Amino acid sequence: MYTRPLARLIEALQKLPGIGAKSAQRLALHILDRPDAEVEALAHAILEAKQQVKQCSQCFHLSAEDPCDICRSPQRLQSQICIVADSRDLIAIERTREYKGLYHVLGGLVSPMNGIGVDQLNVRPLVQRVARLSPSEVIMAISPSVEGEVTMHVVADYLKQISPSLAVTRIAFGLPVGADLEQADELTLSRALEARQALV
Amino acid sequence: MYTRPLARLIEALQKLPGIGAKSAQRLALHILDRPDAEVEALAHAILEAKQQVKQCSQCFHLSAEDPCDICRSPQRLQSQICIVADSRDLIAIERTREYKGLYHVLGGLVSPMNGIGVDQLNVRPLVQRVARLSPSEVIMAISPSVEGEVTMHVVADYLKQISPSLAVTRIAFGLPVGADLEQADELTLSRALEARQALV
Repeated sequence: MYTRPLARLIEALQKLPGIGAKSAQRLALHILDRPDAEVEALAHAILEAKQQVKQCSQCFHLSAEDPCDICRSPQRLQSQICIVADSRDLIAIERTREYKGLYHVLGGLVSPMNGIGVDQLNVRPLVQRVARLSPSEVIMAISPSVEGEVTMHVVADYLKQISPSLAVTRIAFGLPVGADLEQADELTLSRALEARQALV
Repeated sequence: MYTRPLARLIEALQKLPGIGAKSAQRLALHILDRPDAEVEALAHAILEAKQQVKQCSQCFHLSAEDPCDICRSPQRLQSQICIVADSRDLIAIERTREYKGLYHVLGGLVSPMNGIGVDQLNVRPLVQRVARLSPSEVIMAISPSVEGEVTMHVVADYLKQISPSLAVTRIAFGLPVGADLEQADELTLSRALEARQALV
């Protein structure tokens, strides 16, 4: 159906998440239609990102430099460390432009079922980092799934052992801003009730 | 927000059709997560497809070889030429595995509004090819839009001039197989009525 190099391109594109056979064909034909320079720029962007983007040795965020921009920044508060499962979540929090502290990327969640324990995650480097920086607060920005809850408690236990006075907090879960109370699922609503705050 | 090479990759991916900011980020982070070999294979597939896939000098279909597989195949009937707007449509027809003749890709539709006339399309090569191959039938597989109708009539006029006995046909438009009659749009339904066939 397809000439060989086109078939190979469609096959390679289909390995990307959310790209089915139809989308892969559409993308491939679009690529063939674009100017050489634009196509080369895409291929080089792929290779360069893969070659240059590594993990920051401090916080394990994706970065071309080590330490990363956030860890090196004199503007970031050294007294707060926000713990996230992956770089995706870190980027979501950065997008709020509200948080001024440091981060620590765990690289996943504790999942005994899948053989992922503390040693498969960046937990020991976190413990060492907390010992070194002695922040006043560690904020868990982790979804309250079963694995998320386990992870938060395991990590909190480690941190409390080396620094009993450290404040370990978690981000609030409740009604999304602008959401209809009627439409909220029961778990979200019961969390919102539990986490109620003084109004006046 | 993103380390430089990652930002460049997201930007390049966002130029693809149907890929917004969120999808581009998801694809980019996925790419960083994959093994080196897989990422290199993707980049090389892009470059090779762009470098190697050209147009067949006979039918103007996308092909790494010239003439293309279809034009070279001794199994294809030389007596039928199916005319399509682009390679996408050719591939859709090939997928049916029903058609055994040759193709001719016009490379678009006549559109006076956009300054696309017969000379911007592969019409003259078609006329020469029909003169050379003298097929018995030319099938227009072109959507019945305003531009499609104009294109079919203009091309048919050219072909009839050089070969008055040539059968020039168009594919049938009617109710999609399995479709609900009630749900069909009026234009489709009136075409289906017009093109009615003897039942017994």
